[in-house]
Amino acid sequence: MTLQLKRRTIVALVMLLTVSVGGVTRAQDPLPSWNDGPAKQAIVQFVRDTTDKSSPKFVPPEERIATFDQDGTLWVEHPMYTQVMYCLERVPAVVAAKPELKHVEPFKTVMSGNREAMARLSMKDLETILMATLSGMSVEDFNAEVKKWIETAKDHRWKRPYTELTYKPMQEVLQYLRASGYKTYIVTGGGQDFVRAYAERTYGIPPEQVVGTAGGTKYGYDKNGRPFLTKEPKLLLNDNNAGKPEGIHLMIGRRPRAAFGNTAGDQQMLEYTAAGDGARLMMLVLHDDANREYAYGPANGLPDSKVGTFSQALYDEAKNKGWTVISMKNDWKRVFPFDP
Amino acid sequence: MTLQLKRRTIVALVMLLTVSVGGVTRAQDPLPSWNDGPAKQAIVQFVRDTTDKSSPKFVPPEERIATFDQDGTLWVEHPMYTQVMYCLERVPAVVAAKPELKHVEPFKTVMSGNREAMARLSMKDLETILMATLSGMSVEDFNAEVKKWIETAKDHRWKRPYTELTYKPMQEVLQYLRASGYKTYIVTGGGQDFVRAYAERTYGIPPEQVVGTAGGTKYGYDKNGRPFLTKEPKLLLNDNNAGKPEGIHLMIGRRPRAAFGNTAGDQQMLEYTAAGDGARLMMLVLHDDANREYAYGPANGLPDSKVGTFSQALYDEAKNKGWTVISMKNDWKRVFPFDP
Repeated sequence: MTLQLKRRTIVALVMLLTVSVGGVTRAQDPLPSWNDGPAKQAIVQFVRDTTDKSSPKFVPPEERIATFDQDGTLWVEHPMYTQVMYCLERVPAVVAAKPELKHVEPFKTVMSGNREAMARLSMKDLETILMATLSGMSVEDFNAEVKKWIETAKDHRWKRPYTELTYKPMQEVLQYLRASGYKTYIVTGGGQDFVRAYAERTYGIPPEQVVGTAGGTKYGYDKNGRPFLTKEPKLLLNDNNAGKPEGIHLMIGRRPRAAFGNTAGDQQMLEYTAAGDGARLMMLVLHDDANREYAYGPANGLPDSKVGTFSQALYDEAKNKGWTVISMKNDWKRVFPFDP
Repeated sequence: MTLQLKRRTIVALVMLLTVSVGGVTRAQDPLPSWNDGPAKQAIVQFVRDTTDKSSPKFVPPEERIATFDQDGTLWVEHPMYTQVMYCLERVPAVVAAKPELKHVEPFKTVMSGNREAMARLSMKDLETILMATLSGMSVEDFNAEVKKWIETAKDHRWKRPYTELTYKPMQEVLQYLRASGYKTYIVTGGGQDFVRAYAERTYGIPPEQVVGTAGGTKYGYDKNGRPFLTKEPKLLLNDNNAGKPEGIHLMIGRRPRAAFGNTAGDQQMLEYTAAGDGARLMMLVLHDDANREYAYGPANGLPDSKVGTFSQALYDEAKNKGWTVISMKNDWKRVFPFDP
């Protein structure tokens, strides 16, 4: 009886103190890299509405799901997706293992090192290279290769590792949502296994919260009877466009409360998020900052950029439906973590 | 400065008090429905080894993944899988919507209500029924149908809802592992969307932690332009046998530290779990209690039971590899939550 009373008192004390600490924390600006404006305001308002128990828009913790596109939303996608760079740089290793490929296109062009010729490779050529470099090995070997590459490979413009080219303001959104009880997911058109290899260290997002384009694997045994999984050249989920809500249903099984994207490939994910009841947050990153990052899509008057496909139509849909467009130029105080 | 000091003091106090409360809790038996014996001992030892920071077998919290088969491991699978009961009982609604099916097999047999004839339906007949009752509707409609059914449908032997026929000792293992920082997953041969409809309420396992046999969905718009997903009769993942580790890689992306199963369909999941480094826990539920539940598989000398396929070969593999076999009869003080 005494023990029970004691425990109750302790629990009450802990709760009281936790609330106090929470109060102190809440007073700090959770989004210091954002300029005051409608975009920052929309995020803060959404978090307040959905986490305040007295709000009519309160969302129970278990339903707090937020999904983020990666390329162009969390980090740089210009002038080429990081994963495509990985695949191109893996070609020499693939050719070393299968020398007969040296004289076969598109491997021949990649081996030539001629950047202009490589830039002219067709989508079909790229697919051949992706299949050759992303399948045929064990999931452990692939994971180790990507981890090794991502630690040393550098972007050509900034001469920094790709993982340093994440957007600081978006990292703050990830942290702010997590601190507010949201599970943050990456929902990417990129390869699920590729992104999983660095997502935890780079974004604080564990492998099980990365949804991406996924191939099948095949279970088998090595010569010592030890089981392992081999990556197969068989597409299970093309996590782009309609594939994003389909992938979200497959992998999460709940409709997101908040979704962040930047191109037409994210349209359906945002529509699907918006179609739910209660508070919802839909945001699009507009690349309108040629100086600090890039300007493409609607920002420079082109209907579609070379890599991103943030078409004018999606921009108009966002405006019509009241989704929030984030202007990199106006809404972000700094772009990268290394910016002053 | 004063504020900082204050916050530090508060944080220290909170930690101190939390540890005290944790200490009180830890003194209680986390597995009260288990008899003392090698099975209970194996679970407790595994948790101690992997959560004690000073242990050489310590596992960082983010790597604590435990996977559980459902049918026959977490709840009764005899004499027929609950999901098959659902599909059979949905046939009248399907026939009402498409009256032409009334005279077509296997629907005709199911509509006859003749239990003996139904028991003789072939696997192919059952597949036809599964496809007709598990696809063609929106994911929301399906979820609502399952939720409605599972609240009222009853098992024939105990005359209780299926969700009351979960094994109390296994519910304790789920809770104990979660309290020890493990993420608990269901990895089932059953339908992913079916199990997701009740897993949170029944096991405390959220939809995103249910891996199961999964079909594709198709994104589209209703007449008001509202997007929705339709369940398609297209198999994406057959989450049985080799499909279990393949599904674990697809949906979780980490090798489990602990895995629980009961039939040959779980063999590869247990092998895959065992093949990792460090502390691993592999357990098989043996159905040897005809009195309180059922006896089938190796327990009654049959090579395979009608529903389960816990073959003698798997039982032998478990013995050889040091996996722990849980004897329902000897290891469990009570089987169901309603047992005295």
